[in-house]
This record gives sequence, structure tokens and C-alpha cells, in this order.
Amino acid sequence: MTLEDLITSILPLNAEAMRAATQRQDMLTKPQGSLGRLEDFSVRLAGIAGKLDIPMKRKRVIVIAGDHGVAAEGVSAFPQEVTPQMVVNFLHGGAAINVLARHVGAEVSVVDMGVAADLPDHPKLFKRKIAYGTANIARGAAMSREQARLSVETGIEIFERLFESPGIDLVMTGDMGIANTTPSSAIIAAVTGKPVEKVTGRGTGIGDEALAHKIEVIKQALAINKPDPSDPLDVLAKVGGFEIGGIAGVALAAAAHRVPILVDGLISTAGALLAAELAPRSREYMFSAHASVERGQQAALQRLTLEPILDLNMRLGEGTGGALAAFVLEAAARILNEMATFTEAGVSEE
Amino acid sequence: MTLEDLITSILPLNAEAMRAATQRQDMLTKPQGSLGRLEDFSVRLAGIAGKLDIPMKRKRVIVIAGDHGVAAEGVSAFPQEVTPQMVVNFLHGGAAINVLARHVGAEVSVVDMGVAADLPDHPKLFKRKIAYGTANIARGAAMSREQARLSVETGIEIFERLFESPGIDLVMTGDMGIANTTPSSAIIAAVTGKPVEKVTGRGTGIGDEALAHKIEVIKQALAINKPDPSDPLDVLAKVGGFEIGGIAGVALAAAAHRVPILVDGLISTAGALLAAELAPRSREYMFSAHASVERGQQAALQRLTLEPILDLNMRLGEGTGGALAAFVLEAAARILNEMATFTEAGVSEE
Repeated sequence: MTLEDLITSILPLNAEAMRAATQRQDMLTKPQGSLGRLEDFSVRLAGIAGKLDIPMKRKRVIVIAGDHGVAAEGVSAFPQEVTPQMVVNFLHGGAAINVLARHVGAEVSVVDMGVAADLPDHPKLFKRKIAYGTANIARGAAMSREQARLSVETGIEIFERLFESPGIDLVMTGDMGIANTTPSSAIIAAVTGKPVEKVTGRGTGIGDEALAHKIEVIKQALAINKPDPSDPLDVLAKVGGFEIGGIAGVALAAAAHRVPILVDGLISTAGALLAAELAPRSREYMFSAHASVERGQQAALQRLTLEPILDLNMRLGEGTGGALAAFVLEAAARILNEMATFTEAGVSEE
Repeated sequence: MTLEDLITSILPLNAEAMRAATQRQDMLTKPQGSLGRLEDFSVRLAGIAGKLDIPMKRKRVIVIAGDHGVAAEGVSAFPQEVTPQMVVNFLHGGAAINVLARHVGAEVSVVDMGVAADLPDHPKLFKRKIAYGTANIARGAAMSREQARLSVETGIEIFERLFESPGIDLVMTGDMGIANTTPSSAIIAAVTGKPVEKVTGRGTGIGDEALAHKIEVIKQALAINKPDPSDPLDVLAKVGGFEIGGIAGVALAAAAHRVPILVDGLISTAGALLAAELAPRSREYMFSAHASVERGQQAALQRLTLEPILDLNMRLGEGTGGALAAFVLEAAARILNEMATFTEAGVSEE
């Protein structure tokens, strides 16, 4: 299936299931609306599932890794070798995302879509390297248009493979890639038209001087590459990253297969933004997991009209916010399915 | 043990364990501070546990029910008969707190401390009725000083019984009692000195006119009873409720036994506020589960210097916010215990 065919296959939410969910929420033994956003989440989840009995068992984190030529500009506090080291950490179960995924009962898959090093074989690792890192966006395009399309299509392929077996009821996107807040902020600036200063943060924790330099690097990347905001694949090719394209692909495939997507922090939100620019309807399948400390996320969420579920001052990525927020979405689904109605419980209504 | 002895037995957090937890967080494979509040929570939990291996298995929701004479003033959207009906719903597992407690792996205990109806025997129900509801605070004191003390001591007794067996690693407080946002707002106004208008909300969902009336009722209750803000038991007796005293007792006992307390919405926060006025050190053992729609909570949290973990526009009570936030606290503990360090994982530091 081509990318265009997949996009066409994304259907609207099921309005009838959403109506039924809203009605049921008002029959449950609690003051109407008193569970706030949990009630809203349950209605949208019903619209995605097309039924009130929302499946939530098979939760999957897809962490996509890629390196970035722009790391050479000194925009990160960590050396590039950390990307493959962290991939190995993911495979051995020692990273934050492993702990949080275990905690919420989710499986973790890792995809190498562009790490600048060779990685060992591992049953949890999908080897889909497009290149040994992107080119330096401060000097030219990150990748070719063909590579941009391939990164999105690879995200789709990975999702569909896991959806086929063992199945996915809820997908969380995650990222790993030293320097990847830089292309993410560049994408968000390009798509939203916001000033670079407003969408650029400290990433892994750089100081004031390095932040000023990072802003200059992103401005230069936009000036040199002139990404076309009306052409998401052009934006991805010019100032993006392989893992960001992969995340966009996962989001598109999830929407096409009617699976809710929990979008993590800055990098995942940049990927989701590209997905929504390619297929505006995919937005209806997305939930924003958490408010990132990275300020660029806010501009992207505004355009996506999504409001974060959690706000815990986090800025790690990997899908860590998604794993935490999955508990909340599952809670919303269980409330809808498991609570007694006023009639069932013999409780008087107002 | 008397209330005074219990209060004296509350010790400060373990500073050494907190130092060790902070050090360990900085050795884990993530940029320093990138897990935000999860890191802070883990440090405080270590200070409570007195060790890095924070126990979190035995999670307990204690839902305390009581009725309120002030319901006669028409301050709630629901009739008083709903209190015992909901208690039965809790016992049968059909309420929101049952669903969310199951979801987070917590057990629910229910305490009748003052429901205005007789309740059936049930293994999950502690029958500790002090009276068939409080007196109407708009006309006089809610209860005697002896009853106020008894309600706090009953909360302590219930906690200690469950702590003894099967054990409690984390306790969540919950409430049920038609009209109980009225005494909660009255307590908060009395203790913090804030204007009644600033600490009174719509409870189960009353309209503008009923809200104006509720504010007048609370003003009248404060004017008639003149609770002494420097004497928490006087405040409880004059304008409180049995379940609110019980919650204060649970919080004090938890602090004395070095168990973290997840404080739910408005009613639980009013109870926690009384506990902290009785024993300022108990505050260090408290976590605020969620920001309630009820505005009075904010004034109480300000005085407690606690910041809510979640903000999902909820206003149900029962301990529902606590059950959701328990997942976050447990995540914080697991991060500290289960993540690999830079050295263990062979990852380069910045």
C-alpha cells in the first residue's frame, strides 16, 4: 500500500459509539461530568474502537532511534555515541522506558532507522537503517525526499507488522537520537511559522550560551533549506530526522487501523504534527501524553488542538510520558466498561 | 495510644535516604533531572521509607463515609439517601473508586463513621458510626469536641488495624457524604482565613443560585460557631464532619508509621489540612493526588505547600484521584529501583 492509499484509508471516528459512550457516562453512579477528562477520553476511545467495550490489553511502545548530522554543531550535552548505547540499554531493559512500560503492562519494540553505528541483532530490535545518521541540517538537507518517504513508510511497516501479530490496542511512540530536539524544533518552526526562539529548548540540559547557539543553528537550517510548510515530506527531508519520519508513519498507520496513539514529548509531537499535516484526520486518533519541558511542543500541540494528559516536568522522551499516560487512558476505558449505573446499583439520581 | 502520643511519634524524613536517592537519580541512564517530578517523588518516598528500595505493593484506599445535617439547607444536588446507597455500591465494587483501585492494584476498605442510615454487615465495611450524621452547622456545632476527637482517633484505629494486617505501603484517602463539600469549604475558610467565596465550589454540580446560597450557609456556619483557627479539633467539631476527622486520623497514623499518604480532592485535603495543623510534620508524608475542580482545595494545598500530581478536571472524591496518582508514585519508586546506571549500561555521560 502506498503512503497516499494509507492516508485515504483513515476514516472518521464512529459518531454512534461516541454518542452511546456519552449516554452511558451520564448513567454511571457519579455526578455527571465529575470524572472530567477521563469521561472525554472514554468517549473518544469509543469513537476510535467503534464500540463501548474498548480494548486496551495489548499496549505497545515503539521507540525509534536515529542520529543527526547536526550533532556536529554542538547542540547537545551528550556525545553521539550515546544513541547506540541507549538502544542497547533499551534492548537490555535498563532504560526509563523499559521500567515504565513494564509498570503499565506494555511491550517495547525498538527500531534502528538511522543510528550512526552498527547494532547487534536482538529479537526486540527492528533493523531498518536508512543511513548512518542524517546529514547536518545547518549545511544542507537532512535527507533526500525518497529517504523521507521511506522513513514514514518504514514506521507504517513496523506498526502493521506488530498490529498483525501480536496485535496492538494502544500504541505509544518514543524516540532516541542525540541532538534530535534540534530537528524537532526546526520542523515545528517550519510548520507552525512560529519564531525559532519560541520553539527551541534546552534538550538534554544545555546552558544559556549553547541554547543561543542552538537557536542560531536552527535559524540557519531553515534559511539554507527553505522547507515548504505546505509539503510535510519536504519539511521532513530538509530539516527532519529518520526517527521523526518513522513516528509520523506509526501515527498514520495507527489511525488507519483505528488504534489510539499516545504521543510523547517534543520529538514525538513533531512526528505527529507531520502526520496530521499529511492526513488531518489522523489527529482524531491522537492523545498527547504529557506536557514536555521543551517549549516547542506547545506550539505543535496548539496546531494539533491536543491538550496533554500529564504535566510532570518531564523531558526525557523515549515514550516515557506515553507509558505513564497509558494508565490514564486505560482507566478511562475501564470506568466506561466497569462502573455500575444508577439503576444497577439502586442509587438515587439528582 | 492517645492522639497526642501519636502526634509526638511522627518523625522527620530520613535525610540520609533522601541524599542517597538524589545521588542515585543522577547516576541513572537519563539526562539529570529529565524525569522531573518523578525524581522528586522518588526522593521523598525514599525519605519516608528510610531506604531506596521503596515498598509499594500493598496499596490501600480507605473510604470514609458520613452524613451532614447541613444537607437540610439544600446545599447539594443529590438527596442524603445517596450516601448509604453509594456505600453499598462501594461494597459491591460498582463505584468509580472500585474500578480505579482494581486498575492500580489497590484494596478498598470502607468505613461508616456517621452515615444517617443503618448499613448491612460486609467484610469490607468497618462499622464505626459516631452518630447518624452531624448536626446542621448552619444552626450550631457539627458535633461535640469529644466526637471530633473520636472521629480522628477512629481514623487512626482503622489505619493501624490495616497496617498491622495485611499491611500498608501506600494509603489513599477517600470520602463519601452528601453535602460534604460544605463543611470542607468551611474548614478551609476557618483555617486559612480566606473569604468563603474563594473556597466554595459547586460540589456535585449545583447552579449559580444554589452556589450563592451555599456560600451564605457557610458564612452563617462560621458566624454562629466561631471556630478557633488555632485549635484544629475545635474547627472540626464546629464546622466539620465525621469522615473529615477520620481522614485526618488516617493521615496522622500514616505519618506516624512512615507510610506515604495520597490525599484526594477537596474533602480529603480538608482532612489533611486538619492533620497538618495538629502535627505539622505529617505534611512531609503527604502527596496531593490531583487538582480538584473545587476551588477551596487550592487554598488548602497552598497552606500545605503541596502541588497536585494530576489535573484531569475531576471532582468526584471517593479517593478516585488518589488511585490514579498511585500509579505515578509507584512509577517514581520503580524508576529509582529498576533503571540501570550509566556504569551498569555502559552509556557515556555528558
